[in-house]
Formats: sequence, C-alpha cells, structure tokens
Amino acid sequence: MSSPRQMHLGCFILAAGHHIAGWRMPEAEAGSENLDLVVRVAQKAEQGKFDLVFLADAVNTRPDMHPSMVLRLEPLTLLAALSMVTKNIGLAATASTTYTEPYNLARYLGSIDHMSGGRCGWNIVTGAFADAAKNFGREKHPEHDERYAMATEFVACVKALWDSCEDGIWQLDKAAGRFIDAAKMHTPGFEGKYFSSKGPLNMSRMPQGYPVMIQAGASEAGRDVAGRIAEIVYAVHQDMGASKAFCDDLKRRAVSFGRSPDHIKIMPGVSAVIGGTEAEAKRKLEELGECADPKVALQVLAERLGHDLTGYDLDAPVPDLPPSGIMRGHAETLQALAKKDRLTLRQLRNFVAASMGHRLIVGTPEQVADGLQEWFEAGAADGFNIMPPWFPTAFDDFVDQVVPILQKRGLFRQEYTASTLRGHLGLPRPEWGG
Amino acid sequence: MSSPRQMHLGCFILAAGHHIAGWRMPEAEAGSENLDLVVRVAQKAEQGKFDLVFLADAVNTRPDMHPSMVLRLEPLTLLAALSMVTKNIGLAATASTTYTEPYNLARYLGSIDHMSGGRCGWNIVTGAFADAAKNFGREKHPEHDERYAMATEFVACVKALWDSCEDGIWQLDKAAGRFIDAAKMHTPGFEGKYFSSKGPLNMSRMPQGYPVMIQAGASEAGRDVAGRIAEIVYAVHQDMGASKAFCDDLKRRAVSFGRSPDHIKIMPGVSAVIGGTEAEAKRKLEELGECADPKVALQVLAERLGHDLTGYDLDAPVPDLPPSGIMRGHAETLQALAKKDRLTLRQLRNFVAASMGHRLIVGTPEQVADGLQEWFEAGAADGFNIMPPWFPTAFDDFVDQVVPILQKRGLFRQEYTASTLRGHLGLPRPEWGG
Ligand SMILES: Cc1cc2nc3c(=O)[nH]c(=O)nc-3n(C[C@H](O)[C@H](O)[C@H](O)COP(=O)(O)O)c2cc1C
Ligand SMILES: Cc1cc2nc3c(=O)[nH]c(=O)nc-3n(C[C@H](O)[C@H](O)[C@H](O)COP(=O)(O)O)c2cc1C
Repeated sequence: MSSPRQMHLGCFILAAGHHIAGWRMPEAEAGSENLDLVVRVAQKAEQGKFDLVFLADAVNTRPDMHPSMVLRLEPLTLLAALSMVTKNIGLAATASTTYTEPYNLARYLGSIDHMSGGRCGWNIVTGAFADAAKNFGREKHPEHDERYAMATEFVACVKALWDSCEDGIWQLDKAAGRFIDAAKMHTPGFEGKYFSSKGPLNMSRMPQGYPVMIQAGASEAGRDVAGRIAEIVYAVHQDMGASKAFCDDLKRRAVSFGRSPDHIKIMPGVSAVIGGTEAEAKRKLEELGECADPKVALQVLAERLGHDLTGYDLDAPVPDLPPSGIMRGHAETLQALAKKDRLTLRQLRNFVAASMGHRLIVGTPEQVADGLQEWFEAGAADGFNIMPPWFPTAFDDFVDQVVPILQKRGLFRQEYTASTLRGHLGLPRPEWGG
Repeated sequence: MSSPRQMHLGCFILAAGHHIAGWRMPEAEAGSENLDLVVRVAQKAEQGKFDLVFLADAVNTRPDMHPSMVLRLEPLTLLAALSMVTKNIGLAATASTTYTEPYNLARYLGSIDHMSGGRCGWNIVTGAFADAAKNFGREKHPEHDERYAMATEFVACVKALWDSCEDGIWQLDKAAGRFIDAAKMHTPGFEGKYFSSKGPLNMSRMPQGYPVMIQAGASEAGRDVAGRIAEIVYAVHQDMGASKAFCDDLKRRAVSFGRSPDHIKIMPGVSAVIGGTEAEAKRKLEELGECADPKVALQVLAERLGHDLTGYDLDAPVPDLPPSGIMRGHAETLQALAKKDRLTLRQLRNFVAASMGHRLIVGTPEQVADGLQEWFEAGAADGFNIMPPWFPTAFDDFVDQVVPILQKRGLFRQEYTASTLRGHLGLPRPEWGG
C-alpha cells in the first residue's frame, strides 16, 4: 500500500564517516580526499534513489578537528566532478556567505546546475568556525546575527545575478547572425550594505532557475532566514516532540513570508548504526566508542557548544555556558539534552563523538526504518539527512537493507520520476525575477 | 628521425571558436555553455596527445563581447568536470588574482590537481576587463602595475598555503588511531600588503606540489612576473623575429631569477585555418570574415587596444593611442603591426576578429606544420597554444591532419610518457616549501 506523502532522503557525505572513529572500522575507507570513495558513495546513493548527496565545508582546519574535516577536497569542484558520474541524484554543498564573493559563487553554483542538468543544491552557511576569519585576512569572524544579515543580503544578490538573463536567451541563429537575444540580458545593479554587484552575470539562467536553497540555522536569526529562503532545512534533534515543534515553527515562518509550507522540507540528521540484531548494532556502537580519540571528541563538542572545554571536570554535569556565538541552535539543543537526561560532560562528549549531536538509531534495518517512519508520520520530519558512521559499508547497508523496507512500505520512491533536484523534492522552478 | 627537443601543444578552448564568426560555420557547434562540446574537444585533444587544454575566463560580460565570452560555464568547475572524463591531458584555466581570495582559489586549484592526479594548470591573470570591478562592489579596477604587484603577492600567498602540509601527511593507521601525522601540518601565517592568510590550508599537498603556473603578460611588469613565476607563457606574435626576441627576453629574465631557461615554456597563440589546398583555406577565411559582426569586431579590438574606438574613421590608418592600462602588451604588438604593415583601422579590426591578434596560418596541413616547425626550430617558441577558429571540426582537422605530420617529423610525442602536466612539460615537481 503506497502512501501519498513520501519522505526525502539525503546522504551527508563526510568521507571519513560521521562517527569520529568511523574511519578506524575494518571496512572503512577513510580519506576525505578520496575521490574514488566519494564517487562510489554518490553512485550508491543514486542506486538507492536518494534525493541528494550533500558535502559540508569549512574554510579552516586544525589537526584535532573531526577527522572528516581536517583535510578535504573542496566541495564545489567535487560536486562538478560528481555531475559527470551521476545522472539523477541532487548534488548539494555548503558554501559560505561570509567568505566568498557573490559574483564568483553565483558562477560556481550556476555552472554546477548547468553541467548537472538542474541538480544543484546550496547549503547557505555563515560559517560555523570563527578561525576562518584569519584565513581571509580579516580581524574577526563577524558576530552571529550580523552574519545572518550578511547571508540574507548575499542571497538576494546572487538571486539578482542569476536572473541577469531571461530564459531563452540563446538564439544560435547562424543564418541571421543572431548569437543571443541581447534584449534578454539585464543589468541587476545590486547594491547592498555588505555586498554590491552590478552584473550582468556571464551565464544564462540555470536549469533550476536557482539551486535548491538549503539552510541549517536553528537560532532565532537562523530560523528567520530559513523561513524566508530555505527549501531544505537541516536540523539536529534527538527528541521527536522537539523536532515536531521545530517543523511546525519553520513552516509557520515560511507561511508568514507568503510561502507554501510544502516548499520547505525539514530534514533532521540521522546516524544509523545497523546490525543483523539489535545487540550486534549496539556492539558496533560500543566498538566505535572505544576507538574514539578523547581529545578530538572534546574538540568537536567544544565547537558545537562554542566554548573551550579544557579544564572542566568530565564527570561532573555539563556546565551552564553563555550562549554560543557560533552554532547557537546546536549548543542549545545539546544543553537541553544534557539537562533532560542529566548527562555528564563525558557522556555528552561521547554522544557528540558518535553523531555530532544528531539523532542516533542503533538497531536492525527494521528498527531503523521504524524510527524514520515514526518521525515522518508524526510530522516531525519531511525526510532525513542520513549520516553514516563510516563509509562505504555502513552506507551500503542503509541502501541495501533499510531503503527496500521504506519502499515496500510506500514511504520512499522506487524510481526517479524527475531529473532535477527540484523535481525530486516537488519544488517549483522559480519564475524569472522571482 | 626523431629530434630530441619536442614541441608542446595546448588547445585553447573558447567554445564558440576563436574567430568571432566561427560559430556561424555550418559544422560549428556553438555555445560556450555546451558541456558536451567541451568534453568532446578535451577528449579529442587527448587523443592528439596534447599537453593541455586551456579555458580562459573573465568576470564580466556585455552582449557585444566576443561570442565565446558573453555567456560561459565557469572554468574551475568545468575543469573539475573534465578531470573525470580525461586521463592524461593537462587541464588549465584562468583565475583572477584581483577578484578571488587566496584561500578559496588555493582550494579550488588544489582539488582539481588532486582529482585529476596532477594535471592542473593555472593561468594567472590580473583581469583584462576593467568592467569586472563593479561586479565585486569595487570603485575601480586597480591600475596596471599595481595589479601585477597584487598578483605577485597573491601567488606567494597561495604557494605558502599549498605548502601547509608536508608530503606524506596521511597516515590512516587504524590500529594506532593515527589519522594524519599532525607534525607535518604547519601554519604559514602569510601576511602581505594586499593579501593575508594564516592557514593552514585544509588540504594535503597536491600531486604536482603547485599547479603549473601560466602567465600571459607582455608589458614590462607582466614580463617581470612571468620571468619570476611562469612555467608556461602565452604570447601574441605575428612576426617570428619578435617572437624569438620575446622568448630570449623571457628566458633571460627567468635565468636572472635563478631559474632554468628550460622551465619556462613560451607558447605563442596560433589560429590555423586548414584547407585541402591553400586556396580552399583562404576561401574559408574569407567566408568567416564575411560572417563577422562588425560591431562585435570593433568591440574586441577596442578591448585589445584599451580604448573606445567609436568615432574613428575605419579607413584611415590606425590612430596613435596612449598606452593601454588593460592588455598593454597586446596593444603594443597590434600597434607595431599596424605601423609596419600600414594598416587601416578596418584592416586591423578584421585581423583581430579572425585571431584576436594572434598568428594566423592559412593553408594545407603541411603548410600549418611547416609554419609551426619554422618558429619552433628558430627558437621563437617552445610550443603553441592552438586557437581553432571554430569547434569542433576545425580542431578535429588539426588533430587528424596536422598532428600526424608533426609526429612523423619527430617534432611531437606519439604517446604520453607521463601522467601529470608537469611530466608532459618536463617540469620538476617543486620541493615542499620551495
Ligand atoms: C546537517 C548540518 C550540516 C551543516 N553543515 C555545515 C557546514 O558544512 N559548514 C558550516 O560552517 N556549518 C554547517 N552547519 C552549521 C550551520 O550552518 C549553523 O552554523 C548551525 O546549524 C548553527 O546555526 P544557528 O547559530 O542559527 O543555530 C551544519 C549544520 C547542520 C545541522
Ligand atoms: C593566450 C592568452 C590568454 C589569455 N587569457 C586571459 C584570460 O582568460 N583572462 C584575462 O583576463 N586575460 C587573459 N589574457 C590577457 C593577459 O592576462 C594579459 O592581460 C594580457 O596578456 C596583457 O598583459 P600586459 O598588460 O602585461 O601586456 C590572455 C592573454 C593571452 C595571450
């Protein structure tokens, strides 16, 4: 029996795995610079009829960051490469509105959309790592809410650039000598407080009009931006009620900006540790925990909470800390979790080491499918951002064992019915000048 | 008989063709956004054992620019895509040192080098089009020599970033839990007048160490930069003596900076119009000329000379104009040509419409091969940047008809003997920290 509403699935490719010790599993092929691995994962996701794959990004590094982040291929060039070895799946990546230029980024994303035939998605981030500033010769990372103000203006600017040309500009009329229809090229002349770009952009309108807009803010300012512009929202929730409240809030905000609630898809992250039995899955998670580097784990937690944690007692309850200026929403969710479950700092550190704070489902393929179905049917999610603890086999198991169950239950597509990311998500192509 | 020294060949892909009317030829497949065409051209160049393909770029547009430049795919993402559908050929593109950030560009080029297994080349330009400034919210395009000062510092900055990690940083020792060798990661802390970037770059050292550095400046400031850092120099010469003098000058400059004259390869541009007979080739060129849009032709000449030309008498001799602040060397070469051959503005316009001021060889495949051999053996070139008047068939003819002659004469490789662009060019891989 097939349900009319189906969930959307994305694969969050963090090529050393999402668990900080994932790369140490016997079958793991680590290496966030491993092109061949990323290609195989994207092709596997496409075989599983996923809506999209997603590549995160940051413009800074240190040796004790999450192993997937220390060294990495640059995601825009990587997406461009993936466009040549996949056919249907959406291709999304993070790009910063704080550390790129609108004219340049408009071109990179536009090219990817052209080359992939309309499969590009853009995760709009303001930068979750304050260290980035010094890599761009800046004194300091702009303050949290100002970053969102910049992001809002940046998006308006690139949209104006993307609409430099009306649809149908190409003429290629050899006999008449008409290469393009020059009347269809316009000069947006965007002038803002943070960004200005006269244009026109040197590219025709892209197949999707604009790439699918993704956003992951959870703070007040972040939710506001998401409600205005996001078409996919990545979220971090361990609790179904909290996730449902988040979905309702985001859809309400979208409606208040005159948008349809169906055009904003909430996709919380899920890290699934899959075993033939629940006990086997639990053993895997334990094994991963034993392999985790405690120093890296504490650093990852420190980034999420927005505070240096050295010096705190690991076996005392998670301390109260002032609001984070970086990933504010993540920090709040984790603090709430720690309060509710009375976690020690060590326990919270270990949880974040496993799933970076996202929901963790540990069990058989049926149990994983049940866990997804429950949230989906409760209106706590429109789909899920799948964050495998390691690659490729933990993801292969998801595709080979969990996806067929979801398909059988009518919760997920059996075949692609569209060839663009907007098509997979049921999103309209924006009108020119929209 | 095989000669020990062999020429290098690059294909300059300007996908509507180099002749401004190339796209109107019956067999031309126009469209600088035509990914499929670019892929086929790159694969054809690889079949012809070319050293590299090259994609130019600009960060501005107007409807009456050269048709290959009005609308275009962004070249870095395009190179990334080409890395997946080619195996041996070098992949080079233009990127501006005036309108990108060192940390970002270091990553894009580094990723392309990683993904292609060491085939990336970078044409370092300061921006030949002053209109770019307004697309980046800047008051004005920096002045000619200052742009080169910025470029020099930019290159020093990205080299420092590319050397953030020593070779061999990856450990992936699962048993010991050693992901990388953290001692091999360094913080360059680059601080300059125009650009600063602390680093480290979040990428391991690339296969080639640095991408092959290409430069095309011809002015005093441009030659100075080329002598210091360029490994390929693109040049514009119609006269063999002038090209020989240019080669000698550039190699002398390289030596004065402590470099080997063999590590700077001078590649003047050549537009070959090939026919079964000389008469047929000449007919093709005439036909192209008749199809050229005079308004676009004058605009292209105006860009090359750095001055608005509306109002000048087309049938009077080319006027004396003050030095160009944009493409200074091109302007001088064209002015010299006009003086020497007593050209009218109309004649110069028509010449530039055909080859953008580069050498034009019109004849049979043997005549084209002769023309290349002559300059090569005279020391007026180390190789050639082939600029087909249209794509794909004008380039197919070059590969199918001219290359075999060059190979037979021992002037060009029969097979690849290396898999990196440095390998094809006989350039060393730079030492770490070099
Ligand atoms: C699934 C997911 C992926 C994210 N990817 C990135 C990323 O690639 N780069 C980045 O700087 N931040 C990333 N973030 C962080 C968000 O951009 C944002 O900083 C964070 O959600 C906190 O926003 P807030 O301060 O509005 O709560 C991601 C967040 C989530 C939930
Ligand atoms: C073959 C060739 C390719 C070039 N490609 C570009 C390009 O893609 N983008 C650009 O802005 N300038 C390009 N240029 C222009 C040069 O970067 C430079 O501006 C020009 O050669 C004049 O430099 P000069 O002022 O030092 O003489 C190219 C020049 C040549 C000869």
